[in-house]
Amino acid sequence: MTVRDHMMVAHSLRGEVFGPARALHGATYVVDATFRGEALDDDGILVDIGRAAEVLHSVVADLGYRNLDDDERFAGRNTTTEVLARYVADRLAERVAAGELGTDGVRGVAVTLRESPVASATYERAV
Amino acid sequence: MTVRDHMMVAHSLRGEVFGPARALHGATYVVDATFRGEALDDDGILVDIGRAAEVLHSVVADLGYRNLDDDERFAGRNTTTEVLARYVADRLAERVAAGELGTDGVRGVAVTLRESPVASATYERAV
Amino acid sequence: MTVRDHMMVAHSLRGEVFGPARALHGATYVVDATFRGEALDDDGILVDIGRAAEVLHSVVADLGYRNLDDDERFAGRNTTTEVLARYVADRLAERVAAGELGTDGVRGVAVTLRESPVASATYERAV
Amino acid sequence: MTVRDHMMVAHSLRGEVFGPARALHGATYVVDATFRGEALDDDGILVDIGRAAEVLHSVVADLGYRNLDDDERFAGRNTTTEVLARYVADRLAERVAAGELGTDGVRGVAVTLRESPVASATYERAV
Amino acid sequence: MTVRDHMMVAHSLRGEVFGPARALHGATYVVDATFRGEALDDDGILVDIGRAAEVLHSVVADLGYRNLDDDERFAGRNTTTEVLARYVADRLAERVAAGELGTDGVRGVAVTLRESPVASATYERAV
Amino acid sequence: MTVRDHMMVAHSLRGEVFGPARALHGATYVVDATFRGEALDDDGILVDIGRAAEVLHSVVADLGYRNLDDDERFAGRNTTTEVLARYVADRLAERVAAGELGTDGVRGVAVTLRESPVASATYERAV
Repeated sequence: MTVRDHMMVAHSLRGEVFGPARALHGATYVVDATFRGEALDDDGILVDIGRAAEVLHSVVADLGYRNLDDDERFAGRNTTTEVLARYVADRLAERVAAGELGTDGVRGVAVTLRESPVASATYERAV
Repeated sequence: MTVRDHMMVAHSLRGEVFGPARALHGATYVVDATFRGEALDDDGILVDIGRAAEVLHSVVADLGYRNLDDDERFAGRNTTTEVLARYVADRLAERVAAGELGTDGVRGVAVTLRESPVASATYERAV
Repeated sequence: MTVRDHMMVAHSLRGEVFGPARALHGATYVVDATFRGEALDDDGILVDIGRAAEVLHSVVADLGYRNLDDDERFAGRNTTTEVLARYVADRLAERVAAGELGTDGVRGVAVTLRESPVASATYERAV
Repeated sequence: MTVRDHMMVAHSLRGEVFGPARALHGATYVVDATFRGEALDDDGILVDIGRAAEVLHSVVADLGYRNLDDDERFAGRNTTTEVLARYVADRLAERVAAGELGTDGVRGVAVTLRESPVASATYERAV
Repeated sequence: MTVRDHMMVAHSLRGEVFGPARALHGATYVVDATFRGEALDDDGILVDIGRAAEVLHSVVADLGYRNLDDDERFAGRNTTTEVLARYVADRLAERVAAGELGTDGVRGVAVTLRESPVASATYERAV
Repeated sequence: MTVRDHMMVAHSLRGEVFGPARALHGATYVVDATFRGEALDDDGILVDIGRAAEVLHSVVADLGYRNLDDDERFAGRNTTTEVLARYVADRLAERVAAGELGTDGVRGVAVTLRESPVASATYERAV
């Protein structure tokens, strides 16, 4: 089951490889969060779409409308698309483990962040 | 190899978790069917796109323009996006096993149903 | 300025021309609402995106998760994509005229409803 | 004729109406530039797609990978989606007038900036 | 009201301006056909979506799976995206005028051909 | 990490199964290339998006604006979507192995070619 949200952030990247992206710029990240499992519950669902969307929104809202260069959660690290995908996936896995999705059927999460029509990054992990 | 079709259905969902979706409403499901295999045949294909599209269309047409609450195939079960994705995948697997795709190279099928720009469900299975 | 939302409804259509759509079925309508004007205000906007999204959402939420065949607002009329686009556009025009968008620069509205990847309808009107 | 490009910028917006967007954040703008005319030339084109794409890219590249709050071109003004759409359209109109598109058939330009899957702004003008 | 179809053709373009597109190559054109009018009929439609889709498909099928360089309809002319959009629009206007859409409410047609994610052409005309 | 490009080619397919696609026609292939790995480097990336895009573009440019029926690389073979996806994936795997992506973290590549809104093929392999 996959739900979508988005966030708008400012940041810059440190390292010669990044070229023009070393300057302070920004991105709209379209965020797809996938919850995987092996069986459906008695209601016929893996997770409720509405609840999954709320949990994703709370994680995404905690990143959006910020300059990530000033965010202590990423101190000393580049906030690349890959790093942000992993961050969102890790927060979702915590929420699943805490029972916030109201199900015990989720075995894994995958998060894709699309930064433009031509580039995206996905991070997958177990729960 | 993936082919796309769509279907338009009415239904309601039983269970407190579904909130407003407990009322009779409807959905356009955009259906992506993926056929997986390990090798291509002498024509350079896993399955013919045209034949795959026809088989998917016949499965989808058998669900569309209906009120699924009155459909005996789903009696006593919720027709959630997950359940419908599994139903389509199971029918496609039967068609593959019956040789209707004109190939013996398909090892698995995956079906994704997109119910809105922000929610979808995928079901994967072996053939 | 254009904002997007969506709604999921059940309905049927009366008339020989509609073929299988005469049966009770449903649709996810992706709704794009465009507000047109000739000048931007001192903040550099025609309308605030957040406020426009809220107004659109309230109009769309008033239609969604329903069987439109039982809706008094459409008694005796087909709820075709064209009719629903006009209904949404008329409600938005009322909201604009009532000052709910917090601007007096809007001169017209246009509403597009996409019912599937291959079909949509647009209704345009002055405000 | 329409060509597409994109740009990634940081900025903040001044004014109570903008809520969380008053903080420094960012956006990926997907930019569609449309060139309008009444007749095709002897080659069967209004403008060459390749040349149109190059001109759009040079305008967009001049905005991307920047913090627009520090950009003199927008000093004292909000860089809303509407303002940026107008800025890009004005630059394209200058390029058309200067003959850089290699045609004299263009009568108008329209620029759409999509800032997220749910919001965009369009600015149209004559050339 | 807008319906979508697609076609796959081979062609080459004559003229220095076209660069690499002077070689024989090909394109998938995603074709959007819009029918415009001022009023809906008693069924609540401008044109029936199903009939509009059939008419568009017959026009598009008459172009697809061909090498347009060998097509007498375009002898001596480049089959640019603009030219093909006009050709499809002209054929649709003829069909409307011949009553094949089963309505007398259509006042104009517009056809958009998308040749790639970054380029498209639209042709509009009265009926 | 996934980057997108596209190419426009002419070709025909040999074999009864292909029906109308046996005639010379063409396609725009939208190409998504995914690079997979298990860990990020010290910069916080698997591969640099810019470099990945350049490598993909050079592979795709080597196929585009051609009639693949005359291309020696595919002599005696059908250039189906599946075959082309495998060809692009094999070339990308060679580039990864040659160190051209400036990283040793890539373990696999997957290439998806979309030939139309309703059909695509994906080829995955290790590096």
